[in-house]
Amino acid sequence: MDIQHVCILGAGTLGTRIAFQSALSGFQVKVYDIHEKSFELSKKMIEKIAKSLVSSQIYTAEDIQLALNRLSYTLNDQEAVNQADIISESVTEDIEIKRKVWTRMGEIAPEKTIFTTNTSYLLPSSLASFTGRPEKFCAFHFHDVFYSRVVDIMPHPGTNMELIPILQDFGRRLNQVPVYVRKENHGYIFNAMLLSFLGAAGKLLVNQVATIEDIDLSWKVNFHVPMGPFAILDQIGLDTAWHVTHQLPDANSQAFAALLKTYIDTGKLGEKTGEGFYKYTSK
Amino acid sequence: MDIQHVCILGAGTLGTRIAFQSALSGFQVKVYDIHEKSFELSKKMIEKIAKSLVSSQIYTAEDIQLALNRLSYTLNDQEAVNQADIISESVTEDIEIKRKVWTRMGEIAPEKTIFTTNTSYLLPSSLASFTGRPEKFCAFHFHDVFYSRVVDIMPHPGTNMELIPILQDFGRRLNQVPVYVRKENHGYIFNAMLLSFLGAAGKLLVNQVATIEDIDLSWKVNFHVPMGPFAILDQIGLDTAWHVTHQLPDANSQAFAALLKTYIDTGKLGEKTGEGFYKYTSK
Ligand SMILES: NC(=O)c1ccc[n+]([C@@H]2O[C@H](COP(=O)([O-])OP(=O)(O)OC[C@H]3O[C@@H](n4cnc5c(N)ncnc54)[C@H](O)[C@@H]3O)[C@@H](O)[C@H]2O)c1
Ligand SMILES: NC(=O)c1ccc[n+]([C@@H]2O[C@H](COP(=O)([O-])OP(=O)(O)OC[C@H]3O[C@@H](n4cnc5c(N)ncnc54)[C@H](O)[C@@H]3O)[C@@H](O)[C@H]2O)c1
Repeated sequence: MDIQHVCILGAGTLGTRIAFQSALSGFQVKVYDIHEKSFELSKKMIEKIAKSLVSSQIYTAEDIQLALNRLSYTLNDQEAVNQADIISESVTEDIEIKRKVWTRMGEIAPEKTIFTTNTSYLLPSSLASFTGRPEKFCAFHFHDVFYSRVVDIMPHPGTNMELIPILQDFGRRLNQVPVYVRKENHGYIFNAMLLSFLGAAGKLLVNQVATIEDIDLSWKVNFHVPMGPFAILDQIGLDTAWHVTHQLPDANSQAFAALLKTYIDTGKLGEKTGEGFYKYTSK
Repeated sequence: MDIQHVCILGAGTLGTRIAFQSALSGFQVKVYDIHEKSFELSKKMIEKIAKSLVSSQIYTAEDIQLALNRLSYTLNDQEAVNQADIISESVTEDIEIKRKVWTRMGEIAPEKTIFTTNTSYLLPSSLASFTGRPEKFCAFHFHDVFYSRVVDIMPHPGTNMELIPILQDFGRRLNQVPVYVRKENHGYIFNAMLLSFLGAAGKLLVNQVATIEDIDLSWKVNFHVPMGPFAILDQIGLDTAWHVTHQLPDANSQAFAALLKTYIDTGKLGEKTGEGFYKYTSK
């Protein structure tokens, strides 16, 4: 199957990034959202990403212009999908919203269209039946598209296995490293490991074994990397971290979730609010 | 307190590295071991490290020569310790051996001497009473001294707190980043986080969620680092990894330990034997 037309559902943070990379990779891209306002924000995000891609000489200004010519926004889902070889869904992480969106796509999308979801924490098997064509449905999960360039390909038990090589190839054309998740797993591969590592850091902190700074230093200096666990948490957002952590049943996770809550309650959500475990000054 | 004379107990992998860095930092160093053969191996290790330090222009050949003039080996523990301001103990990780060594040091070391252990997995409180002077005893735990330059300072409840700033200062003079572990914790800080992260990778593997290669790729590509969890395990040694993992009670750790055992039983211990999860060819 030759993918040429890509439909992106949701023009938020991830939908925008996937859409822009798809256009940069030469695909024709239609982006659908229910909020017109999302398109304005999306265009601003693209402008910012484009600047950094040009200044780091990954793409030329001309590449960017050609990509933008291939990308359009629409509030009409029928128009968004009627030529689509593949859908990449990045609507809000809410099973009710995803249920509505996938039910509708099952009704209006062409026969040929491959259905993929970018969900971070839901399993594709929990969404597959909504689509009316579960065999065409697979998780295709990006990280941030431009810096962390892994795409997880995670089928559910009913996925037609012929999709896998098609998605691997499509992933590579989007400049990603495809990894194959053979069995459904919460958090795919990377997030599952990251969660354990960050949880261990949280446990050290709530048990008062060491300070935030010393825990981060231990990781950074030993591995020669720029960020330790608490700086990573600030980047992820303490609200998102709380959302995941407070659902874990063990006492250490509960204690860490309670600690995260004290930050959230005082407006410290991490980098995006200028303060979390650390303070950030805008440059 | 002004540290000038350093006594290293155990001329193995870590004792050698700590001794050499101490001499490079200007200290007078005596290294004690019960096996003369260890000294030959230790000298070879130092030669190898010295080469790489000179070729990466961290020290000059002259610095190395001056350091070697400050370092001597002895089979006589009395001679090793009789001027020592501080002892750094790196004998075999076996509580019986450490008990003997510390009991003897309690008897023969000068009054002034600070006692430190480099144990990886024992808690200092399990060794303190052997020394006869628990208030002088603290864990002072290195990683590999030259590449991973963190030193953990972990007192037991009976440690005199005046030791902490002395050890922080001594750590810095050894070119390390000191981190303070306020409460005794198995694995200090870094190893505690590393163990969780590697355990999560092992869990993904034994549950057949993904291949070794795809698990490593996920970590490497997302974090822009050279090694994923299985390459790190090969470097640590699968025997050492098994030793830690098989003591953990949960089903995933037990399954991962059993998998590690199949490698060990066929002589695949990781980098040091040329094969583990990956194959290594000597350059
Ligand atoms: N943010 C991340 O780092 C990240 C990373 C990987 C995956 N994801 C996943 O991507 C998805 C989107 O996350 P995000 O961070 O981009 O969220 P976001 O809130 O930035 O964007 C969601 C977008 O969906 C739109 N939307 C809501 N309901 C809709 C509907 N019925 N039809 C069409 N559009 C609708 C919203 O208007 C919004 O523009 C989630 O499933 C999330 O788990 C996020
Ligand atoms: N290898 C590592 O990566 C690492 C890292 C941090 C800490 N450590 C810790 O450092 C200590 C030493 O580990 P290693 O890897 O250097 O081990 P090793 O086996 O390389 O060296 C141990 C040395 O102790 C000597 N020894 C044995 N009994 C002795 C005695 N009674 N008196 C004096 N010397 C004696 C042995 O002859 C040998 O030379 C252990 O406690 C270990 O947990 C090791």
